[in-house]
Amino acid sequence: MRSPITWQSVQAEALRRLRAGLWTPGARIPDEAELARELGCARSTVNRALRELAAAGLLERRRKGGTRVPLTPVRKATFEIPIIRLDIEARGQCPGYRLIRQATEPLPKAEARAMRADPGAPFLHLLALHLADDRPFCAEDRWINPETPGLDGADFETLSANEWLVGNTLFSDGAIGFAATAATPELAALLDCAPDAPLLTITRSTRAGPRPITAVRLFYAPGHRLETRL
Amino acid sequence: MRSPITWQSVQAEALRRLRAGLWTPGARIPDEAELARELGCARSTVNRALRELAAAGLLERRRKGGTRVPLTPVRKATFEIPIIRLDIEARGQCPGYRLIRQATEPLPKAEARAMRADPGAPFLHLLALHLADDRPFCAEDRWINPETPGLDGADFETLSANEWLVGNTLFSDGAIGFAATAATPELAALLDCAPDAPLLTITRSTRAGPRPITAVRLFYAPGHRLETRL
Repeated sequence: MRSPITWQSVQAEALRRLRAGLWTPGARIPDEAELARELGCARSTVNRALRELAAAGLLERRRKGGTRVPLTPVRKATFEIPIIRLDIEARGQCPGYRLIRQATEPLPKAEARAMRADPGAPFLHLLALHLADDRPFCAEDRWINPETPGLDGADFETLSANEWLVGNTLFSDGAIGFAATAATPELAALLDCAPDAPLLTITRSTRAGPRPITAVRLFYAPGHRLETRL
Repeated sequence: MRSPITWQSVQAEALRRLRAGLWTPGARIPDEAELARELGCARSTVNRALRELAAAGLLERRRKGGTRVPLTPVRKATFEIPIIRLDIEARGQCPGYRLIRQATEPLPKAEARAMRADPGAPFLHLLALHLADDRPFCAEDRWINPETPGLDGADFETLSANEWLVGNTLFSDGAIGFAATAATPELAALLDCAPDAPLLTITRSTRAGPRPITAVRLFYAPGHRLETRL
């Protein structure tokens, strides 16, 4: 009796064909049912094998039009962006939160551009610190549209804007960016690090249809790494 | 005649139900056919509306078991990781490449751990610089398993290891990480920036089944941003 064909061996065979140029860039590969017949395995095995290759950008799946070899290989990586408190808990640490200041201020140009809002418009500006086991984890520098429904009832002394927004606002589209920035004196004091220390910085902006909602910069304490499997 | 129901309006309705708690965390939502009947639109319109919410982590789709509201909302962001040369070309800039040095050296601990390889094993170590319009774009500090098939025929003076590996090696699993690091004196000289300048740093490691292939650290010149839509 032959041992059953695993998805790993189907994936290896698909990679061999890609590498050998049997499946060429731009061309459509056989469909799942055809590959399953050819390789003598279940269609679900083929599906499992190709799913990862597609997620990694080595194959392109289209709703109609089947699966193709991309013209230029683009690997893809998916990062999960949890609520900061849950991220800290997932690391087995005890989360803490402190609101540093809160004021209505004119929206700076960079944040206005990110949200497609009017620069200079009065927005709620928050600076807060997230802690893990009582040590600085990440500073949250956030702007919120004052017309966001329900905002009047929010108490950012006790609940971070990060968490309030996930639970209370609509979401339609947004952008996220990664960069490295040098700690300003204020951030260095908050994060308990040297001035100019390199900080992994995540910027996010979100809109709900026509309405800008929020723009945030998260500055992670030195040494922070964001990781995912490919 | 009523105007046709758009996927945007279906998405807004789904968000309204999520926000109002009509669709509760952990619960299964109606399937696409049912929603299409209820809302009076095509099933493909519902599919289009829910796809983005799932990509953003607001809904969880399972192969069997339908679509659920996740217990803890986790937004997801997918980044494309193109070949560095193609990334530079996509920015409308002219790519350049320079091999700085190449030697066989004992594999450091961090890279060994990342690839699940033996620390101290002889690996090929490359340092190269990628340029955009003749200006430093990114430094590539890479370790390659000398047993990688075809490696003897590779000429890293003319083709970057980044590009050679994408075209010539199998890929089974790997990891990617983002961090901010301070420029070492050597990197500062290569990237034409101040020592200790904050550099967005991407680490990647790949394996092909049981075989470690490569571990790389990409140090991007100051100011580099990696962006994606949510």
